[in-house]
Amino acid sequence: MSEFTWIDFLSSQPDLQENSVSVGIGDDAAVMRVPRGHELVMSVDTSVAGVHFPKDAAPYDIGYRALAVALSDLAAMGANPCWVALSLTTPTFDSDWLAELYRGFTHTFSQYSLTLIGGDTTQGPLALSVQVYGLVPTGSALLRSGANVGDIIFVSKALGQSALALEAAKRGEQTALAKSFYTVEVEIALGQALRDFASACIDVSDGLLADLYHICKRSQCGAQIEADTVCIDKTLLEKVEAKKALEIALTHGDDYALCFTIPASRLRAWQALRAKQFPHATLYPVGKIVEGDSVFVSGIEDLNLQQSGYQHGMQSDVVSNRSTGKR
Amino acid sequence: MSEFTWIDFLSSQPDLQENSVSVGIGDDAAVMRVPRGHELVMSVDTSVAGVHFPKDAAPYDIGYRALAVALSDLAAMGANPCWVALSLTTPTFDSDWLAELYRGFTHTFSQYSLTLIGGDTTQGPLALSVQVYGLVPTGSALLRSGANVGDIIFVSKALGQSALALEAAKRGEQTALAKSFYTVEVEIALGQALRDFASACIDVSDGLLADLYHICKRSQCGAQIEADTVCIDKTLLEKVEAKKALEIALTHGDDYALCFTIPASRLRAWQALRAKQFPHATLYPVGKIVEGDSVFVSGIEDLNLQQSGYQHGMQSDVVSNRSTGKR
Repeated sequence: MSEFTWIDFLSSQPDLQENSVSVGIGDDAAVMRVPRGHELVMSVDTSVAGVHFPKDAAPYDIGYRALAVALSDLAAMGANPCWVALSLTTPTFDSDWLAELYRGFTHTFSQYSLTLIGGDTTQGPLALSVQVYGLVPTGSALLRSGANVGDIIFVSKALGQSALALEAAKRGEQTALAKSFYTVEVEIALGQALRDFASACIDVSDGLLADLYHICKRSQCGAQIEADTVCIDKTLLEKVEAKKALEIALTHGDDYALCFTIPASRLRAWQALRAKQFPHATLYPVGKIVEGDSVFVSGIEDLNLQQSGYQHGMQSDVVSNRSTGKR
Repeated sequence: MSEFTWIDFLSSQPDLQENSVSVGIGDDAAVMRVPRGHELVMSVDTSVAGVHFPKDAAPYDIGYRALAVALSDLAAMGANPCWVALSLTTPTFDSDWLAELYRGFTHTFSQYSLTLIGGDTTQGPLALSVQVYGLVPTGSALLRSGANVGDIIFVSKALGQSALALEAAKRGEQTALAKSFYTVEVEIALGQALRDFASACIDVSDGLLADLYHICKRSQCGAQIEADTVCIDKTLLEKVEAKKALEIALTHGDDYALCFTIPASRLRAWQALRAKQFPHATLYPVGKIVEGDSVFVSGIEDLNLQQSGYQHGMQSDVVSNRSTGKR
């Protein structure tokens, strides 16, 4: 398969052309229309072989994960995903391999009404740079910068499973756990629902403490996490002792949960909508926004928080560890 | 320099926030507004070390070229560039190296009122994936698909110099010729002017014949190039014999000229505007759109057109070579 054959293959796929796309794949650039009263939300996420996924991963899994982690940023903005572009750097143009990659990459396309608008294909070390586009009503995007003292901090799912999944995937296991490293669940519907309630939102890709610190920095505030309210993945709790599990849950990236803050005044309305629209979701409060500029963990002593997601060797002021004794 | 320090560095640069950008660098995604009556034009271009530029190239040059070749696609659409995102994959985070890359990358920002809206930074083999965004009045983008039989084919500059420049750059020469491989001149103003005149347009990145074939394929027509009207770079003509120079000019990529077609009915109006707005540009007709589905070169015998830009081993029906004898 040549580069041009690959582009022809992409162009010939059904459902790739959509109303809002004036010019799709096959010209020098794509041309799109943004509906009146809406803003365009754009994020890009690069996945490099050997860094973000094992070099010998299955192409379907590589494609699946690359788009999912990119979409997670749109979820965190409360955006409705609409267009995708894929910049693929690949050492070889193997038809079967590329078709499988494409199948994994596009598997959520119908779910979110996504349209592939273009991209780029180059020869080189395997990497996927995925650009995702979404729409929000003007002024309604969820930002990191809106948290205020007193807001309650929520996390959208149990944390820490991804650490086990990553290890299993690295070992090349053919288990459900290893598979879950690739089939990242993205909180698109939750993000959109949060537009009317949350004061700030981020997706947990660097680790809860690191990502919460991003909210604190942009919102000029601090955060206090209650150790015993953090929902830890059950499998992780079975495998390692409780304190170690908490450390992993607080610092490991890759969970792609949403971490968001709800002002106390909107809490009842949010809980009512949550019960109705997300009855099975585990959306537990894990702490609150406080004065200051640090993220504290209270209710436990001597946590070892050196491991901080992708950003190893994080500065000591980013994550503080404060014991408040027994509560 | 850590990934987060690099993002802080980017966020602190002046003139990065612009009116149409609601949320720039520093959140999960960027949020932009598209003015009413306009469409969004998007292209992405990936430059890989060792494939698109020599591995030991200067960071300033790498940054300069990566953005320029991406902008060339917007020029070919007649778009007004507005936003840029940079996905950088880099083996190390060296402050000086990154600052130089940034200086080269942004050197045209003020010229085109460009705003850096975001991107992504990952560790891995050196590569830059550059997303560029432009605006066009709705329905006015220059496409590959509008050429008709009888239209005159133009090329915006002398061709073939880039082949010499590439060789000089590969040898690591510190000459003006080697430098010109990186400091690609992009035809933004020309592209915008062409919106009212051209029936089709493309930028010459794969080689004139290959790119003209793209126009033919999308426009369902053929093209005839007159060998002795092709404007060949003077330095190239000094270095190799005339026929070889023509072969290079017809097939080498990297020149980033615009190749466009003008209907006969608009020719006088276009020439008048050209003389006024682009008095020093060498915008020569090189042939015309004809019936069929191939690109022919007439006026010369036995051209060796095996070398076809980046896409080596091109199918024989893409580029035909027809001798029409002496004209």
